[in-house]
This record gives sequence, structure tokens and C-alpha cells, in this order.
Amino acid sequence: MAGNTFGTVFTVTSFGESHGPAIGCVVDGCPPGLALTEADIQRELDRRKPGTSRHVTQRREPDTVEILSGVYEGMTTGTPIALLIRNVDQRSKDYGNLVETFRPGHADYAYTMKYGRRDPRGGGRSSARETAVRVAAGAIAKKWLRERHGVVIRGFMAQLGPIEIPFVSWEHVEQNPFFAPNLELVPELERFMDALRKAGDSVGARLTVVARGVPPGWGEPVFGRLDAEIAAAMMSINAVKGVEIGDGFAVVTQRGSEHGDELTPQGFLSNHAGGILGGISTGQDVVVHLAVKPTSSIRLERRSIDLRGVPTTVATHGRHDPCVGIRATPIAEAMLALVLMDQALRHRAQCGDVVPPLSPVPALSPGATGSIPSPL
Amino acid sequence: MAGNTFGTVFTVTSFGESHGPAIGCVVDGCPPGLALTEADIQRELDRRKPGTSRHVTQRREPDTVEILSGVYEGMTTGTPIALLIRNVDQRSKDYGNLVETFRPGHADYAYTMKYGRRDPRGGGRSSARETAVRVAAGAIAKKWLRERHGVVIRGFMAQLGPIEIPFVSWEHVEQNPFFAPNLELVPELERFMDALRKAGDSVGARLTVVARGVPPGWGEPVFGRLDAEIAAAMMSINAVKGVEIGDGFAVVTQRGSEHGDELTPQGFLSNHAGGILGGISTGQDVVVHLAVKPTSSIRLERRSIDLRGVPTTVATHGRHDPCVGIRATPIAEAMLALVLMDQALRHRAQCGDVVPPLSPVPALSPGATGSIPSPL
Amino acid sequence: MAGNTFGTVFTVTSFGESHGPAIGCVVDGCPPGLALTEADIQRELDRRKPGTSRHVTQRREPDTVEILSGVYEGMTTGTPIALLIRNVDQRSKDYGNLVETFRPGHADYAYTMKYGRRDPRGGGRSSARETAVRVAAGAIAKKWLRERHGVVIRGFMAQLGPIEIPFVSWEHVEQNPFFAPNLELVPELERFMDALRKAGDSVGARLTVVARGVPPGWGEPVFGRLDAEIAAAMMSINAVKGVEIGDGFAVVTQRGSEHGDELTPQGFLSNHAGGILGGISTGQDVVVHLAVKPTSSIRLERRSIDLRGVPTTVATHGRHDPCVGIRATPIAEAMLALVLMDQALRHRAQCGDVVPPLSPVPALSPGATGSIPSPL
Amino acid sequence: MAGNTFGTVFTVTSFGESHGPAIGCVVDGCPPGLALTEADIQRELDRRKPGTSRHVTQRREPDTVEILSGVYEGMTTGTPIALLIRNVDQRSKDYGNLVETFRPGHADYAYTMKYGRRDPRGGGRSSARETAVRVAAGAIAKKWLRERHGVVIRGFMAQLGPIEIPFVSWEHVEQNPFFAPNLELVPELERFMDALRKAGDSVGARLTVVARGVPPGWGEPVFGRLDAEIAAAMMSINAVKGVEIGDGFAVVTQRGSEHGDELTPQGFLSNHAGGILGGISTGQDVVVHLAVKPTSSIRLERRSIDLRGVPTTVATHGRHDPCVGIRATPIAEAMLALVLMDQALRHRAQCGDVVPPLSPVPALSPGATGSIPSPL
Repeated sequence: MAGNTFGTVFTVTSFGESHGPAIGCVVDGCPPGLALTEADIQRELDRRKPGTSRHVTQRREPDTVEILSGVYEGMTTGTPIALLIRNVDQRSKDYGNLVETFRPGHADYAYTMKYGRRDPRGGGRSSARETAVRVAAGAIAKKWLRERHGVVIRGFMAQLGPIEIPFVSWEHVEQNPFFAPNLELVPELERFMDALRKAGDSVGARLTVVARGVPPGWGEPVFGRLDAEIAAAMMSINAVKGVEIGDGFAVVTQRGSEHGDELTPQGFLSNHAGGILGGISTGQDVVVHLAVKPTSSIRLERRSIDLRGVPTTVATHGRHDPCVGIRATPIAEAMLALVLMDQALRHRAQCGDVVPPLSPVPALSPGATGSIPSPL
Repeated sequence: MAGNTFGTVFTVTSFGESHGPAIGCVVDGCPPGLALTEADIQRELDRRKPGTSRHVTQRREPDTVEILSGVYEGMTTGTPIALLIRNVDQRSKDYGNLVETFRPGHADYAYTMKYGRRDPRGGGRSSARETAVRVAAGAIAKKWLRERHGVVIRGFMAQLGPIEIPFVSWEHVEQNPFFAPNLELVPELERFMDALRKAGDSVGARLTVVARGVPPGWGEPVFGRLDAEIAAAMMSINAVKGVEIGDGFAVVTQRGSEHGDELTPQGFLSNHAGGILGGISTGQDVVVHLAVKPTSSIRLERRSIDLRGVPTTVATHGRHDPCVGIRATPIAEAMLALVLMDQALRHRAQCGDVVPPLSPVPALSPGATGSIPSPL
Repeated sequence: MAGNTFGTVFTVTSFGESHGPAIGCVVDGCPPGLALTEADIQRELDRRKPGTSRHVTQRREPDTVEILSGVYEGMTTGTPIALLIRNVDQRSKDYGNLVETFRPGHADYAYTMKYGRRDPRGGGRSSARETAVRVAAGAIAKKWLRERHGVVIRGFMAQLGPIEIPFVSWEHVEQNPFFAPNLELVPELERFMDALRKAGDSVGARLTVVARGVPPGWGEPVFGRLDAEIAAAMMSINAVKGVEIGDGFAVVTQRGSEHGDELTPQGFLSNHAGGILGGISTGQDVVVHLAVKPTSSIRLERRSIDLRGVPTTVATHGRHDPCVGIRATPIAEAMLALVLMDQALRHRAQCGDVVPPLSPVPALSPGATGSIPSPL
Repeated sequence: MAGNTFGTVFTVTSFGESHGPAIGCVVDGCPPGLALTEADIQRELDRRKPGTSRHVTQRREPDTVEILSGVYEGMTTGTPIALLIRNVDQRSKDYGNLVETFRPGHADYAYTMKYGRRDPRGGGRSSARETAVRVAAGAIAKKWLRERHGVVIRGFMAQLGPIEIPFVSWEHVEQNPFFAPNLELVPELERFMDALRKAGDSVGARLTVVARGVPPGWGEPVFGRLDAEIAAAMMSINAVKGVEIGDGFAVVTQRGSEHGDELTPQGFLSNHAGGILGGISTGQDVVVHLAVKPTSSIRLERRSIDLRGVPTTVATHGRHDPCVGIRATPIAEAMLALVLMDQALRHRAQCGDVVPPLSPVPALSPGATGSIPSPL
């Protein structure tokens, strides 16, 4: 399958460049009978859209979505759902100087070597603008997962550059532009970003995404494992360089007697596994962490070469997020939703009428502590 | 596509249970005209096979591979290559007590909830034995990548539990059963493992895998990105809980001015990106790190439930690797090879006759330092 | 892969309902560097569009295509190409009576039983209007195949109801609204259609599509055979009920000594195979025939049931083609182009650097006669 | 997906050459809990196996199947089911003369031009021997379809060369080596074949396959249509050159008032559609016809060229079926089963909990007549 389609039976086929006429996608395989309006999708898009604070790009995109197909009288019909978002605030001239040079750390060079050419306006297809489409498609998956299975998917920023953000409350997350789960730290985050912006530099971030209510049994070993597909989904987001499930890299120093989550009839006693064992969901919270690298488009001058291979320097003066991690939380949620929905349908395909020999064990036994805070 | 096929145009379809008659796979889409014998594959299988030291499972499996199809007079013909490995040392009775209970941290419970039943003998399909097949298939990909593109793929153990293993030399890697790139540390690793085995416990590990010589241009944004597929490939290996490309989670605290790899006509000045930008290879070393969790089958007694949901305790007395990370290096290499080969062919499909406007920049400028040691 | 994506590496993902806001598709995997404008696509769309003669539906759709992505400065970039066609002449009230009843021979009933609901306006997704999108996508494939490989794809109407249309010339085909290769017969076809329209009935047709210049070697046995994918492509067109390759059903009474196409260094001596052997192109003309059933929406009253299962009668008074076969030639050409292009890229993926041991044999030896006229 | 995997969620990956060590396949995505033994599969294999009468190849292959995985204690577990059939009666020397020449009408030439080489022993991968694997995999699908949905799939020979075989009874079909539904005609068929064999020639055949009991709703428009996938499945069988659904090519001369199957609460009044409308099953019999060409390997001498392009003549003296259509009935049944099973699971994936607004209409109203005899 070509590279811009995601999923196996619930699929998203994405298109669009940053400064082309539009971005959008086709969502195929959606179950019929799901109530769906543009407002359902717009709500999620608004969480990601640019220009909502001084800490993100000042490009003014309303990101208004139009449903072109697949919905009739407010309900999905089972046919493909096409979503269209027109680009309205292109300023391609800002990028004039980038047509001929490669930004260090940017996809410019790789695209040129692969395709022999690229659309340089605003990063073209490699722009983070493309991720708006994922959020739109993810909104459909989120809605179905919640209504059909009670699954709730939420994310937060766990670290901004050097500042770790201890989890306090999900309510805090939607009350600040960082998706920080800790309002007390927001002033510090703002000061950090203000200084960074002034310096013309950028910074990385660490995010956590959690799906609560996933029933046991989703995932298709050995290659279509739930964790494998989550890893691909997260790593496919621009700027992500690392993915962890559950304890992630902390497992390196753990012992088996510490890591393996014990079971009781009242529930698991911990969740080191992050809700996935053998590539299949266990019924516990699915917990995912990701590392987002610093934006490559910065104002500081850096060494590079141009299209003829001649040495030069590059500084980027367009409108850019100094920390792409800030707006990445809704994207990561959306990607997790897309994976889970596809897996839910694939599980139903193969095992639709299976009756397991025992009832699912509760996610966490009362009083149990996971190695990460249980956030939902 | 069902869950046991990997790849898009170069595909591996895997089958087999730990204590069934055989494991194996079908490799489809392999270019014709590749010289291939069973010895080519056996060499890689022997690197992973059990029983090679006291630090791994003592199950005696020769892992002898038979090529059933797709090769004629020592050359691939372009038709599917079926590989068969008979299981010869099953001792299913060792697992008698596990038929009715779920090992904490093991896939037992998840498999049962998904499929309503499972083959409990030796872990069935969830056993790490399945990964022998990946190594076999990966041997074909490795050979083609080396002969056709000069790509060399190698891996090593970077950390065993608490013991970090500084990289010294690739030559060391094949001279010890840990795949440690540092022979001086091997006695310490052995003492650690001896104590661990005596304790009846298990431990995690951190591995690094590197592909040198990958040309720029492989990868299919935005969902078939090279990094996304590597992440899926690694996370699909039993026990892996985290994957990093290049600097991985270290990017969280980095600034853009530090992270973005500068280019000169003489080469890149660093390799923080791990050889992938925008989901496409840059021509630098592709550098991947993974975290392997401690084995869940341990001798220590742990709380669990049985098939009727009744509380019980479990201790595992079969033959198990106390650190599955020890034998995982060849597996990780194989998975990286499978991803790269599939991407190489897909790139040729879409862009086969593209001539980029400039010659590839060398991987590393003389005197440049990457953030990780350049190991090949 | 969900049901609205066609192809493996060159893919088309289609969306849209007859009376929704728009129809369109995403073409992914297209090689970069192909010169492409909306005019290239419009030319093909205009061949299929409604209202071009009194023998087809009188719905007035300009079928104006907009390229939303994937093209920069008149060249494809390798990223997904989204094509959008707005619907402008919906008259959904014409279909008011069909909301509650099922037309005999129409997809109404099947859609309702599958999805539990359907968009009844103009047939929704099951409308032949959907095929405009295939023609648009096919225009891209046709252009690439012609420019890169010299492949020319053309089709014609071979029979309209009882009237067989002997092939005279390709030049005739584009000079009449039936795509008949024989201008002399056009008055008879017109009289037939005028009478049929007056009678309120519809009729079937037989089409032939030919691809000339396909090099030997395209096709992926045993399931991705070229003929298998052509069969799927043709049968996926609304109203098609039969597909033949080469001699098709005539082979039933043939002997091997008659059917097998002999080879000489000067060329094949016949083309009973229709250019495909063992699922792989031979270099001869790829010849495909298809049977198109009579339109199910007719003015004559017929017995049916309504949404509650109560008996009723149905007659359709909207704007319909009395013979959908008339406009189907460009659609069949497009589907053949899509299959060939995908197979061309897949062949390049697997066998890109294969050098066969001999030069291709010419398609037809001078003086040879195929069992069907060689039409290009 | 590479060319030797069939299906989307229920997949079959096939391998093996005629004279290699073995043929076989991996069936993935099978629901767990299906009772399955080798005897279930052997029964179907025995219907297709060679040497059962003087009218087919005299190669002695017991076609004994071994289940290598995916079944535990007589039940499928949901993991991949690998099936292995060892080749035991190779006589590769019979084919010595074919190494260097191309049989007219055979895949020899096409394989050589595609792959640059081929396994010439017994036709290698292009041999009809490969279809044994389809029958084996199809046996699993047939069993699940029958047990889970009451679907029964049967086929028969409708015409052998010039001899049309009017349908009399399904009971006759299994009582003669031709799968003729009419025992009275069997002596004539035998005389015809005896003369043909003596003449050293071969002949074509026409088969019909029917699936009874398919519920309405299977099929994924617009590209994953049920009829499209059936067409691909049938055309992927060696030697098939034409496929029809329902009335097939007879629709060309039909009128809409004749073709469209009227509905009543008591059932459809006819089945011209062959059980599929809009690419979705209607609940009526799914009726498929196929044309099988005459075997290309014949004793009569024919003109061809050799590997260096030099003119020569070829006559084939190995063991061949003079009419491959004779043994093709079980293969066509198997392919129909594979399509239906995959579609059943995909339908369950997307629409698993849909409740249609009305009960399915019976397949045929009492007293109704279809355009083909209703054979089950």
C-alpha cells in the first residue's frame, strides 16, 4: 500500500501540502450509523490549530473542515468519508530563500534526494501542517471508540525541554496552551518559551498519551501487534524520535520480579506493561510516551549547502513553532485513536464471536500503584 | 493484511508455535538472481540459536533451515521462498502447570482473552522462538542489501540491566555470547548473569542496531516513513518496550541549534537524526536503539489467577532465557534488514528513474562527531 | 485494505456520492517528475461526462476537476495527488420515491442490507457517477504509461444490445457518442437507442479495451497476476457482469493446437492469449472484453418491496443512461491503465535490474492473424 | 502486498514449485475455535489430486497435507495455519527439452522475460500443481462458511470442448471424474477425451460454481466489490480466460425490463444478477461461470523459439492433463470460498453490529425461474 494510507480495515488516506490549495483525507471502512457532524471534527481541530497562543506559529489558519462524502442526514453511511481543509494563510514568499537550500535537521534534503524535486513552499508535504488531517480523522475514531466501547483517549505534555511536568490533573490539560497537566508550572513554561523565542532557537518535548477502557484482546501478533502499530503511528508524526509503551526504556534496568504485572481477581497490581502484552491489549490503560525533537526551522544561522552542493548558511524567518511538541498532544491522541479503531475492527473481523473463558480482570486493583501515575 | 505478514512488496509471512511441529515463513517479492543457499541463512540462525552459552535457554534446537521453494540452481527465481525449521526439542510437560494459569508479564492472559483459547506449550505463538523465523528471512534481506547496495547492518548490546557497555569495537561483538562491543566487560556481564540465574530472576537490556551505507531516499512519507516502519518492526519483537531513532529521548532537552545536523559538501557534521529526516533516509548511518524488558517466565513465585479467575501463584520452571535481550541482537538486525529491503524496493517502484539534482553528501564529514559513537 | 482503495503501490482512493457535495480521489505512489495539468485530466473526463448526446443521461455536470495536491510547477512531486470534482446538478427530489423502495436489479437493496441505511439521492455511492473519479485517476496512469513506456490504451463498443459492431478504425471511435469503431453503423445505433428510450427500457453492451506496447514481464503470479487484477478492475465497474482476456469464453471449444500462440523470431503468429500468459504480459496487445448489463433504473413499472418489506411497484423517472455501456469505454480504459501502471511499478520494485536472456519477441509477426482483429 | 498472498483479513500466502521439495501455504486470520483436522483438508485435496482417472495427468502425487501450526487439540487457535504438501513424484528429466525452449501458449516465455530466469522443472511455479494449495486453504474457508453461516459451495463442469452438459443433479457431480452434473453424458465425455488423448491435443472447458446461503451484505464497494474479487480469484487460476457473474455475457442483449430481478416478500422472482448487486451479495445464490483454456503442453509439434531466440519446434511429452478444466472444479470452489470468507470477516469488521431495517428476502420465490438452473 502506498505511503499515505494508514490502517488495514479502517483506513485514512492523507493528502496535501502546507501551501497548496488544501489538505485533507479519505477515511474508509468506518462503520455505518455513527452520528457525525463537522462540529465533532472541528472541536478536535481547534485544539491543534495554529495561532492560539504566542508560543506557537502565528500562521492564521481557521482549519475549517468540510465533510464531502460518507455522511447522510448526520449519520455515517459506511462509504468513504472525505474531509477537506482549505489552506487560507499561505505566505510562500517567506520561504523564498529555502527553495535553493537545505535546512539542517529538516526533511528538505531527504525529499530532494528521494523525489528529485520538492514543493518548497512552507515545507510542502513535510510540513507539520499535514498533521491537521490526522486530527480530523482521529476525531471520527475517537468518537466511535467512546460511543461503542467507552474508550477515552487523552494526552498531555510531560516535559518541555529541561522542565519536567509532574501530572496533577486532566482538568488542567485543556486549560493551557501547552496541554500541561499542571497549571502551577505554566508560568515557568511561558517564561521558558519567551526566552527561547527571543533566542531564535527551538526545543524538544516529551508527551504521554493514554487510552482508558480498551478491552482486552485488541492487537494482531506477531507483526500487527498493537504496540508495533502504535510505535509506527507515533513515529510517523513529524519530529518524533522515540516511542515507549508502559515503562519503556526504564525496563532496561528492571528485574522480571519487578516488571511483570501481577494479577488478582480484583485487578492487576501494577501497569508496567502499559496495557499491552504479547502485542495484545490487556484491558489496562494503554500508556504511550513519545519524544519530540526541536523544530529544525530556527532563526539562528547554520551551515548547510545549496541545490548545487555549494556551502552556504541558512536561517529561517517564516512563521514556525519553536516547540512542535506544544501542539502535538492532539496529534498523538488522534494517532492512538486511529490505531485502536483499526485494531478494534480487525479484532471483530477475526474473533467477533469468541467468548473468552473468564471475565476481564479490572484494569487496576484498588490501591495498586503503577510505575507511572494512572492519569485518567 | 492479516497480522503475520510483514512488508509491502518484499513480504515475510510467518507461522509456527514453540512446541508445534515446525516454524517457518514465506518470503515473497524477493528479486530474482540473488545467489542463495541454506548456509547463507544458517549462519544468521546460528547467531541467535539457543544453547550457545549458559546465559541463555538450554533448549537444544539446531534450528536447521530448509529452503522449500523459490531457489533454483542456487539462485532466487523471484517466486516465494518458503523456509522451514522443524522443532526438535519440545518438552511440553515442563509447561503443564501453565496451561491453567497466567504468568505475570506474559502474553498468556492477553492471548486467552483475544482468542478464547491458546496453545500453552512453551508459550505457543507468543514464544520468542518465533523470532528465529525473522532471523532467517532477514538473512535474505541482509544479503541482497549488501550485494546490491553495499548496506551493512550490525547490532550490539549497549546495556545489560544496570551495566552500561561502552562501544569499543565491532570485532568484539561476535566474540562473546552477549553481542557486547567491549570484551573487557564480558566477565562482569557473566558474573551478573550467574547471580541473576541463581536468584531465579530476569533482567532487561538495551540494544543498538546500525545500518551503514543506506542511500538517501528510502522511506515513504507520511505513514510509510522509514522511521515509522523501523519503530513497528522493533516493537514487534517480543519484549521490546521502547524504540529510538538517532538521539531518541535525548531530543527532549535538546535545542534546535544543537540537534539539527549541519551539512557541508564534505559531509554531515553530526548524526543526531540517526540517518532519517522527514521519514526518509539521508545517507547517514541509520541508528536505532531498543529497550528489551526482563523475561516474564521466572522461577520466583508471583501472584496471579487461573483460567477460572481464582487467585493462585505462578513460578516457571521450564527452560528460559533470563535475559531475552542477549539473543535479541540478530533479531533486531534482521528486522532492520526487512524494513530496509522493502523500502528499497518500494523506492525503486516509485522513483526508480529519478535523478536528484545533486550528488549525495557523505555520511559524516572527516572530523565530525555524532552524538553517538559512529560504530561501523 | 478498505474497499475504496485500488492498487498496491500506485493507489487510488475514491470517495463521493452522486448527490453529495463532491466526488474525488487521492492518487498515491505516482512517480515524481511527470508533467501534469488539470487539462490532461479534463480531456479524459470530457469523454465520459454526461449530457454529450441524447442517448445518455441529461444531467448537466461539467465534471471540472481541481488538483489539490501533489503537483508543483506543473510536475508531480511524488506526494499524493488529490483530485476534486464538485457536483453541481443534483436534483435529489427526482428520487423521492426511491427512498423507500428498492429498484429491481439495482444496488438499493444490497446497500441497505449491508449498511442498515443508504444515501438514496441519485443512487448515492452506487451511482455510476462514481466512475468519473476513475477516469480522472486513469488519465494520470495513461499519461505516465505513454510517456515512460509508450503504452497506448484504447477501447470501443463492440456490441450494443443485439447490434454487433465490426471493427473498422480507431479513428471512428472518437467521432461518435457510442465509441463505435464503425461510423457506418452509427445511424442504426441511434435508431435503436431512440426506440429504446421511447419504450422506457434499457439495454446491455459489450466493450473491448486494448493496451498496445505493454512490455513483457508485468504481472505478479500467482494471485497478483495481471489478468486477475484486470478482471477485478473491470468487474468493479458498475454494471459489468463478465470479463474476458483474449479469446475469453471462446477457449471452451478450442484445442490446444489452435489456441497456443506460436512464436517466431519475427513475432507471435497469433494472439489468442490476449497478451497475458501465466498472469504475466507477453509483449503482445493486452485485449480485454467486458459485458455491461442494462441499466436497472427504467421507466417501466416493475414489482418490488419497500423498506418495510411490503410489496409495491417501482418505475424510475430521474435522468438515467438507457445504456450505461455507452459511456463506459473511457472508464474501462482508465481501469486498465490503473492496473498496468501499478503492475509496472511493482515489476520495477522486484525486478528492476533484471536483464532477460533474450530480446522481446515482436507483438505480432507480419502477416499473422489474431483471433480478434488487431485494432491499434 | 506481494503477489502470492490472497485476501485482506483472511489471507492465504502460497509457495512452491511443481518439482521442488514441497508446495504449501500459510492461512492467516482464521477465526479461533474452528474444529480442524488434516482429514478435513485431505478430503478436498483428494477431489483434485492427479491420477484419479485416465483423463488426467498420470503423475502419482498423494498430496498428503500436514498442518504445521495454528491448530491445537483439534481446534484453530487464531494463529497462522501452515499447510505443507511434499512433492513425491517429480520426473524432471521429462522436461529436459523444455529448459531451452518456450511452449506456445505456456507461461515459459513470460516468466523468463519477467524474472530473467525460471525453474523449468515441470513448469515450476506456473504449474497447475500450485492450485493444490488453494484447494487446501479453501477447505478451511468452506468449513467455516458452512458451520458459521450455512453457506454451501459447489461447482460442476458445464461444457467440455464442444459438448454442453445440461445440469441434472448435484449428486451426479461427485460420481464421475469430470464433475459433470449429468451421468448420462459421461460416456460421451470419455470417448471425447480418449480421442483427444490419442490425437495428442488438448481442449477447453466451461465450469459453473455456486455458493448457496450467502447472507445479504458481503462485499466492499467500490473496488473491494464481491464480484470484483471473485473475478480476480477465478482469473488467477491457471488457464482461466473468462469470468461471468450471473447471466454474464448474456446481459449484452438483454433489456433492463428482462434483466432486473424483481422482488416480492416471498423472494426474488429470478436471479439474473447471480446473487450480487452493486458489488454486494443479495442473499441469492452467488453464481459464477469460468472459461478454462486448453492445456498448452501438448504432444503435437509447434513452432517456437529457444532461449537464444533461434526458431525451433516444441512438442511436450511429460505427464499433462489434456483438459485442465477436468480437475478445476474443486479449485474454483476453493477460490470462491476464500473470497467469501475474507469478505464475511471484513463485513463483520465494518458492519458487525448493523441491524438492517428489514429481514432478508428469500433467495427465490417459490415457482420463480432464474435464467440459469438453480442447482443446489
